[in-house]
Amino acid sequence: MKGRVVVEKIKSRLLKSNPLGDPATRDLCVYLPPSHDRGHQQYPSVLCLSGFTGSARSWFNFQAWVPSIDQRMDHLIAKGMPEMILIFPDCFTRYGGSQYLDSPAVGAYRSYLLQEILPYVDGKFRAAPGRSFRGVMGKSSGGYGAITLAMDHPELFSAVACHSGDMYFDYVYLPEFPAAFRQIKRNGGIKAVISKFDDLPKTGKDDHALLDTIAMSACYSPNPRKRPHRFDLPFDESTGELNPAVWKKWKEKDPLEIVKLKGRNLKNFKLVYLDCGIKDEFFLDIGTRLFCAELKRMHVPHEYQEFDGGHFNTQPRYDVSLRLFADSLARPR
Amino acid sequence: MKGRVVVEKIKSRLLKSNPLGDPATRDLCVYLPPSHDRGHQQYPSVLCLSGFTGSARSWFNFQAWVPSIDQRMDHLIAKGMPEMILIFPDCFTRYGGSQYLDSPAVGAYRSYLLQEILPYVDGKFRAAPGRSFRGVMGKSSGGYGAITLAMDHPELFSAVACHSGDMYFDYVYLPEFPAAFRQIKRNGGIKAVISKFDDLPKTGKDDHALLDTIAMSACYSPNPRKRPHRFDLPFDESTGELNPAVWKKWKEKDPLEIVKLKGRNLKNFKLVYLDCGIKDEFFLDIGTRLFCAELKRMHVPHEYQEFDGGHFNTQPRYDVSLRLFADSLARPR
Amino acid sequence: MKGRVVVEKIKSRLLKSNPLGDPATRDLCVYLPPSHDRGHQQYPSVLCLSGFTGSARSWFNFQAWVPSIDQRMDHLIAKGMPEMILIFPDCFTRYGGSQYLDSPAVGAYRSYLLQEILPYVDGKFRAAPGRSFRGVMGKSSGGYGAITLAMDHPELFSAVACHSGDMYFDYVYLPEFPAAFRQIKRNGGIKAVISKFDDLPKTGKDDHALLDTIAMSACYSPNPRKRPHRFDLPFDESTGELNPAVWKKWKEKDPLEIVKLKGRNLKNFKLVYLDCGIKDEFFLDIGTRLFCAELKRMHVPHEYQEFDGGHFNTQPRYDVSLRLFADSLARPR
Amino acid sequence: MKGRVVVEKIKSRLLKSNPLGDPATRDLCVYLPPSHDRGHQQYPSVLCLSGFTGSARSWFNFQAWVPSIDQRMDHLIAKGMPEMILIFPDCFTRYGGSQYLDSPAVGAYRSYLLQEILPYVDGKFRAAPGRSFRGVMGKSSGGYGAITLAMDHPELFSAVACHSGDMYFDYVYLPEFPAAFRQIKRNGGIKAVISKFDDLPKTGKDDHALLDTIAMSACYSPNPRKRPHRFDLPFDESTGELNPAVWKKWKEKDPLEIVKLKGRNLKNFKLVYLDCGIKDEFFLDIGTRLFCAELKRMHVPHEYQEFDGGHFNTQPRYDVSLRLFADSLARPR
Repeated sequence: MKGRVVVEKIKSRLLKSNPLGDPATRDLCVYLPPSHDRGHQQYPSVLCLSGFTGSARSWFNFQAWVPSIDQRMDHLIAKGMPEMILIFPDCFTRYGGSQYLDSPAVGAYRSYLLQEILPYVDGKFRAAPGRSFRGVMGKSSGGYGAITLAMDHPELFSAVACHSGDMYFDYVYLPEFPAAFRQIKRNGGIKAVISKFDDLPKTGKDDHALLDTIAMSACYSPNPRKRPHRFDLPFDESTGELNPAVWKKWKEKDPLEIVKLKGRNLKNFKLVYLDCGIKDEFFLDIGTRLFCAELKRMHVPHEYQEFDGGHFNTQPRYDVSLRLFADSLARPR
Repeated sequence: MKGRVVVEKIKSRLLKSNPLGDPATRDLCVYLPPSHDRGHQQYPSVLCLSGFTGSARSWFNFQAWVPSIDQRMDHLIAKGMPEMILIFPDCFTRYGGSQYLDSPAVGAYRSYLLQEILPYVDGKFRAAPGRSFRGVMGKSSGGYGAITLAMDHPELFSAVACHSGDMYFDYVYLPEFPAAFRQIKRNGGIKAVISKFDDLPKTGKDDHALLDTIAMSACYSPNPRKRPHRFDLPFDESTGELNPAVWKKWKEKDPLEIVKLKGRNLKNFKLVYLDCGIKDEFFLDIGTRLFCAELKRMHVPHEYQEFDGGHFNTQPRYDVSLRLFADSLARPR
Repeated sequence: MKGRVVVEKIKSRLLKSNPLGDPATRDLCVYLPPSHDRGHQQYPSVLCLSGFTGSARSWFNFQAWVPSIDQRMDHLIAKGMPEMILIFPDCFTRYGGSQYLDSPAVGAYRSYLLQEILPYVDGKFRAAPGRSFRGVMGKSSGGYGAITLAMDHPELFSAVACHSGDMYFDYVYLPEFPAAFRQIKRNGGIKAVISKFDDLPKTGKDDHALLDTIAMSACYSPNPRKRPHRFDLPFDESTGELNPAVWKKWKEKDPLEIVKLKGRNLKNFKLVYLDCGIKDEFFLDIGTRLFCAELKRMHVPHEYQEFDGGHFNTQPRYDVSLRLFADSLARPR
Repeated sequence: MKGRVVVEKIKSRLLKSNPLGDPATRDLCVYLPPSHDRGHQQYPSVLCLSGFTGSARSWFNFQAWVPSIDQRMDHLIAKGMPEMILIFPDCFTRYGGSQYLDSPAVGAYRSYLLQEILPYVDGKFRAAPGRSFRGVMGKSSGGYGAITLAMDHPELFSAVACHSGDMYFDYVYLPEFPAAFRQIKRNGGIKAVISKFDDLPKTGKDDHALLDTIAMSACYSPNPRKRPHRFDLPFDESTGELNPAVWKKWKEKDPLEIVKLKGRNLKNFKLVYLDCGIKDEFFLDIGTRLFCAELKRMHVPHEYQEFDGGHFNTQPRYDVSLRLFADSLARPR
């Protein structure tokens, strides 16, 4: 009595000719629960957004001793959890991710999700249409995507789970800038970096600072006039000095700012769940707590869980949020 | 023009009731080259052994910016490399691996490979039978598996590639013993460790020392009389003092010892390839060089490549060995 | 032909009853050059300020393979460098340092230097009085002290060397705040931290973040009404959120801000020397370059040296600056 | 009521023309207790041996928040501990230390201690002569020196304290060999390393492996025929393979081997104290426990303390051992 995972190829109209030259045909992984193939029932569904450098298929990677998301679902359903469909889109890019935003420097990934993925799934897999049947969740950059999608589109979702989501950019991103600046300088400027991007080492700690700064600049401070890369860095590329105007653009995309404007949109959600580890290496627990404090101020019901752990190897947290989704989402008759 | 990956479920007779309670039904992943489904041709094949904590499916994990093994094959074939079948067995265990050996403490994984996997693939996928068509490769513990299988079974293989394979146990394993000992002591002895094994943290550096020591003890120094775990540790579990008798058993399984007895078996191989990074964190380059020195002494033709890198993120090396396999293995008519 | 180091005990009037309960009687180390005891000559002198957690005596610590400052002087003088007196004050505090500022939360350390140390040395050791004979140098927090003293008191000094000095607080200090906040929270708030300060561990990486944040808060944002510690933290101690008003106070003490107001004071200096390692772990090279860019804009002559190294083990740089002092300072007749 | 520290210059006959060209005139630091200058009383004394890369003066280095050894003595005596003289010899060498042994590759440091330092102190500072009044202590390599001196010369000492002393060379040194080998290889062989030794970087982790391996080879496996360095490495310098004959020589110098032959010499000691941190980075706790197990087997009274800490920042342990020395050593009348 197990569910199954299907991998579809989606030919996107919106991602066609995207600025980074990433493929327009994308994987779409879908978890179909055990009973899906035996009837005509509809199911609630959850859109699952992977973190930076992740994609649709990374949810199913083999990792020793750690169940993959489909194995978790099978296990939870076997123990009595109501069935759901999970949807895993591929929004990976040449820079490592899209933050699930539309950006002229990256591509229309948010539109891709809303205008192409959601309709496709509704039509094909018996995911019940309508906000009351639909949730969105994610981890890290995926948590960022989930919570911002929820605030921006309460007409589409009624439940959200944000695991260790990017928040409070002062603590998350700013500390990476000096290391990123050094790498850019060493490589001869941002244009040089972009032109040899594919050959850059990507696994060291300082490599991450550079990758993250490039990807986030492309998402948060696109600038079509800057060629060829079409984004502004948050610091002067020759001196490293912070650029307040660009930094302000980033901050406008910080969930801590968005919540002030749109947090009330979460009021009629059935589930607003956030969690973070108290040893999170990017200090996202601080941002998440500040986010929840703002929700509290607005009288938005929500649940915040803190756990003794860091930013990585947090997969057991999905068992918590998946159960809450199953309890919160309406069930089609 | 791409190949495809099939995932079969193999119900093993030999792994039934294995001592660790690991499943007897196993994944078998097989890469079939582009022309496989269009004719009746047979192909040379390569058995691909994953490293410690890896399995069949880990060869296909999504990793940002790093092609998976099937994407590498498609790319190499598109550029003119002759087609081959690749075979990916699952020899993962509760302890993280099997070293592809038979052990009364772990299971009959070597026999599983030789008596169940190879015949199955020959029959089903048009992998040409016979040593001249068959190679074996692997990385790390998989490299260990490949080179020892090749030396022990020259009647089955005619080509071998050992990437960063476990060798020279004095430098690879012994330095981990004091940290492993501490963990065992802290946890109340080896029996207590084994009984709570599934709940132990497994991602820290000292965690690795413990995992590695347990898994290798189970593979290299099994002892059916030691219950419940059926293996001897290479040190006294209450004092940490090295146990020379057990350590001797380990050393007998060191490729540097095996090569002295069986290295000549590689003489009529078409390919004996080894490589290692000169920054390998486990210093496997030292062992690999000593291994090659012994081959040289025996006049066994071989190729050794050293590269500027460490033990991890070495996937581009497969492009080198796969091409060499394609050039070396006989082609069925 | 060696100089000698004398250690005096200075009973300070200004440090009496300082808020941290630190001793008012302080070491004063003085390097007297080889000829000092043989005549009546006066010498130029350099005030040498140690870094955070350093003191007068730390300049003379035994460190394997690394000459201490007096050994460097002896060596340089033996090779022909003109003689100088070096003065090493003790401005260490319970929190690890004073930044050589006057603060109601720490003590009147700047006044102590200017009103007590300089007159004492002039009187006792034949350091020639007058700015043309006097320089100031330091490393890290000592570099901060040197460059700010020079800008604030051009009537007292005519030469300055700032080695890896604290600058550009956005990159130096801000990245430490989230870790410092966590430690404060874990310890039950800033009052609890202060009350058990002497028992806190002080050698770990996160320990440093906490120590640094406390010490710099006490120096940069003192607030006599906050009891018992008399300073404001730059973030909310219960949420970790940055406090812009306090952060603004810090920034006013940033050499990058001070230089805009007082950089011109350096115009008639004989030596304005700055250096930093391009791998400085606190990214002080970025701040130092920005500082020099501002000097350039103001047409203030200066010398900036960049070296291939980090923040630590930079003692060989003193050979460079000491020689420049000897060349730049006027020589008494 | 404080003691004082005198720094003598000792012109050694035995260190003259030592093979490393280290100075024959050496610092000797001596702590004289408060009453020393006021009478004619004699005192018990303790010879204090610093660790690898340390020297006489390093016991008095300024370290923030950590009392130096003389401050500890003053404090303990103020609280009632009987007075003692402490003796701090300088046995630092070009390679970082001497292990307080005589070696044709390093110098006659043990003889220097026994034949020159001890007589000098007895004569000059009113340290009472005779084993019942004399102890020896040290940390790390100094702990090694203390415990081996005690076992080899029970006629000279009646009390010994070994803090985190080098023991069980399999776990302490062997794990450093592969990294040391790599450095030697990269630098073009041991002769090249020796010739540029003074210019080698000495602060990185792999640097330590190299330094330690060179220094210990020079101490444990000297070989006057090997020129110019006069020692054997414990591995083949071109392949890295362990050299069992040389390794055997090292092991003969391991306290765990020496104790089997000479442990009984400690039987009539008034104090045999050992301690180690259970997180010691060199796993010296394992060796120390094995050492104590051997003492127990021989019915040698001793005290072993284990503490929750690592190899560094262990100065508070001296408060424990100094008090025990003061209680154990006979007091001259």
